[in-house]
Amino acid sequence: MSKLVIVGTVAFDAIETPFGKTDKILGGAATFIGLSAAQCGADGAIVSVVGGDFPKQYIDMFVEKGLDVTGLEIVEAGKTFFWSGKYHNDMNSRDTITTELNVLESFNPVVPDSYKDAEVVMLGNLHPMVQLGVIEQMEDPKLIVLDTMNFWMDNTLAELMNVIAKVDVITINDEEARQLTGEYSLVVAARKIMAMGPDYVVIKKGEHGALLFHDNDIFYAPALPLEAVFDPTGAGDTFAGGFTGYMAKTGDYSFENMKNAIIYGSAMASFCVEKFGTERLLNLSPKEVHQRLKQFQNLTQFDIELT
Amino acid sequence: MSKLVIVGTVAFDAIETPFGKTDKILGGAATFIGLSAAQCGADGAIVSVVGGDFPKQYIDMFVEKGLDVTGLEIVEAGKTFFWSGKYHNDMNSRDTITTELNVLESFNPVVPDSYKDAEVVMLGNLHPMVQLGVIEQMEDPKLIVLDTMNFWMDNTLAELMNVIAKVDVITINDEEARQLTGEYSLVVAARKIMAMGPDYVVIKKGEHGALLFHDNDIFYAPALPLEAVFDPTGAGDTFAGGFTGYMAKTGDYSFENMKNAIIYGSAMASFCVEKFGTERLLNLSPKEVHQRLKQFQNLTQFDIELT
Repeated sequence: MSKLVIVGTVAFDAIETPFGKTDKILGGAATFIGLSAAQCGADGAIVSVVGGDFPKQYIDMFVEKGLDVTGLEIVEAGKTFFWSGKYHNDMNSRDTITTELNVLESFNPVVPDSYKDAEVVMLGNLHPMVQLGVIEQMEDPKLIVLDTMNFWMDNTLAELMNVIAKVDVITINDEEARQLTGEYSLVVAARKIMAMGPDYVVIKKGEHGALLFHDNDIFYAPALPLEAVFDPTGAGDTFAGGFTGYMAKTGDYSFENMKNAIIYGSAMASFCVEKFGTERLLNLSPKEVHQRLKQFQNLTQFDIELT
Repeated sequence: MSKLVIVGTVAFDAIETPFGKTDKILGGAATFIGLSAAQCGADGAIVSVVGGDFPKQYIDMFVEKGLDVTGLEIVEAGKTFFWSGKYHNDMNSRDTITTELNVLESFNPVVPDSYKDAEVVMLGNLHPMVQLGVIEQMEDPKLIVLDTMNFWMDNTLAELMNVIAKVDVITINDEEARQLTGEYSLVVAARKIMAMGPDYVVIKKGEHGALLFHDNDIFYAPALPLEAVFDPTGAGDTFAGGFTGYMAKTGDYSFENMKNAIIYGSAMASFCVEKFGTERLLNLSPKEVHQRLKQFQNLTQFDIELT
């Protein structure tokens, strides 16, 4: 088992979906990534920042889940990052209502000394310069995974390209892959992104699953077909957390094992959307995860005879 | 091996895509279904109608491919069904420019005596009363598969519901499944359709693959990610032809074997879209099909350890 460094936001979210709305609840990319990675027993450390308003009980909960919080800075005089949004009826699009950066505005990530030798690094969605700052603190990482979004393409493209050149895996959604490359075909887009640096490209298609590209090989992980998506918030981060958690836990960075990690991430994401925020991830038994992975096997495995 | 009866249109198509346009070329649901089913060596018979303008060379080609054409009526004084359409840039939607029913207007399907004992029946997209007429001529079919579209839901819903109640499998696209049931979730929609009669529901999602539902089980076949879709015409029929051809050829109507048939159909559909009309299906070697099935294995199969 190798260590996993997770950088990303730890935040308050207020969410409205067709099924209801929440007050300020626990959210943020590093939160979902960390909880998802911890579920498979990975040794993960959260590198992030919160304000004095962040409840100590949440930090205790991270520790209980087995996450290292040495790198979670608390700015007592500041306020925690806050995001609120409202999902449309089809759950595939949302409007951001509020974004208060607060302590995130001057965030300088510090990787704890005991995690500088981590082999796996998960760069959650954040300013590319912050992501770069984490890469530079690592001693000899074997697998750096980058998540990003269209906001950074629009506003900090040069910095983003600099980070993309330095990572092994990028996770990005289909529309963002098209925006980044100007290509409609995801096969062509993935090839262009690989030419920018990463050896592996994961394109997330929401309810339509995820594609993993490497050289000329492609692997496809479906999303679990669900009766209802209750709240999609954090699903992409939960996917990334399951993916990197599985890679760190197994310490096997081959393409074949990456397929398993993609399935593991997809299974974790399928739990995330069943309830608001982190609620489902916080109450998840190993047995439930095992059953869900079995469902993914039944969903995808076949036995055609190739003569 | 059991026999397969295929009813559907045999037509002329004129197609325009961003890659080019064609004159009147060979098309029609039964054409694509038949060519696809013949590829896996199924013993299939086409039940359809054409006009005196239909080239004999096409009929000879059907026979060469191993298809029975006794049930292909030729109305010498009539004209063959003609459809023309234009695809939009994203290839996911199209406009119909012309529909000339011609000989199809008074089509009375006649199943050849030697195929009345067929175990598998593929009802291609046609008026529900024509589809019903074929069912009634069969002696003891084991697997009746229905394809339909929103046009029949809009115009002949009662007749369509009557047919749906009599079939084992329905193939339908995602938007049509939603229209038929009023449900957005495909899981819920599939359950409602199963309550209408079919034991199996196949929901086609185009570039996002296909879902097979049976009781509480789900199987997901991805579409092969392609650099470019050249012409989507006939892809759904080619899928249905591969599916039913595989079922008839193997004679195994279990859910597990249906998964293989879905993959076989998806592989055939991935060829269909590579060229205009039937061009790719007409020039397809067993070796190419074998390699494509291998690609589907690599695309979907994983080996996660469930402890």
